Amino acid sequence: MAETYDELKRYIRSVPDFPKPGINFYDITTLMQDPVGFALALDGMEKFARAKEANKIVAVESRGFLFGAALADRLKTGVAIARKPGKLPYRTISAEYALEYGTDRLELHEDAVKTGERVLIVDDLIATGGTIEAVAGMVEKLNATVAGISAVIDLSFLPWREKLNRFEVNCLITFDSE
Amino acid sequence: MAETYDELKRYIRSVPDFPKPGINFYDITTLMQDPVGFALALDGMEKFARAKEANKIVAVESRGFLFGAALADRLKTGVAIARKPGKLPYRTISAEYALEYGTDRLELHEDAVKTGERVLIVDDLIATGGTIEAVAGMVEKLNATVAGISAVIDLSFLPWREKLNRFEVNCLITFDSE
Repeated sequence: MAETYDELKRYIRSVPDFPKPGINFYDITTLMQDPVGFALALDGMEKFARAKEANKIVAVESRGFLFGAALADRLKTGVAIARKPGKLPYRTISAEYALEYGTDRLELHEDAVKTGERVLIVDDLIATGGTIEAVAGMVEKLNATVAGISAVIDLSFLPWREKLNRFEVNCLITFDSE
Repeated sequence: MAETYDELKRYIRSVPDFPKPGINFYDITTLMQDPVGFALALDGMEKFARAKEANKIVAVESRGFLFGAALADRLKTGVAIARKPGKLPYRTISAEYALEYGTDRLELHEDAVKTGERVLIVDDLIATGGTIEAVAGMVEKLNATVAGISAVIDLSFLPWREKLNRFEVNCLITFDSE
């Protein structure tokens, strides 16, 4: 996309040593609390979603819910949610992803997406790409198409590109170091 | 409100014995996945928010994020988030609420709301009212006003009314038994 959304950076708070020493956390709460910043981020995501002709949103727990739901309302697509194990009440499928130590899982309801739907997967930030890859795998297992992946923040110093190189990924802003 | 949103009930899936035997879970994922249902729920919340002249949304983790963020985008208010302990990276205040056995806490960033803001607290469902009461207390501690409380579902057979009787509460639909 030709547009630049670098202006979004000034709405994002950098919190040192969270969640542990040496990690710099990019805090999007200050972005969402600002109507101008929040709308600008959604404008960028909406433009990408329309270009990819997405007709369903899958939002990733839990900060992805914030952007995914607002985007679904703009696009009138409906929004499904990918959640941590045990949170979804109906029949689910699940996919594993790697953590720094060990693994975790995400779940999706069996009826979260329908055959042939063009799904935009939405999260706040892409770091290792593990959770997004797990969600994309579930979307495809349910016979829908991953039309694109949209996030506000790209942590370009982390190795998500290899994992997601099959997909069209759009991030609005990039941080290239911690 | 004079309008009836009873039509929303047909978008909500009832899942027996979740999260444990004997409990009937009202599943809003089927509502959110339907563009018509999701828009109708947001229409109802938006009407209440405008009537109460809310100029800030506080959304409760994590299903409240879905409705609260979309509503904030419609109203152009910005949205703050009340989260489980340890999730918010910046300086927080917290409040305790009762569980069936024991207690839990919710946190809010110190700068989540500003003095004098008129806050609409948004969640998907009101059951015991404990989490909402905790969030309302934090909003007031930060010198903002609770303009109203908005949820899709009222579980009227649970005793939330006493806890929240100081506040204007609007739920779109009521279930009077499990």
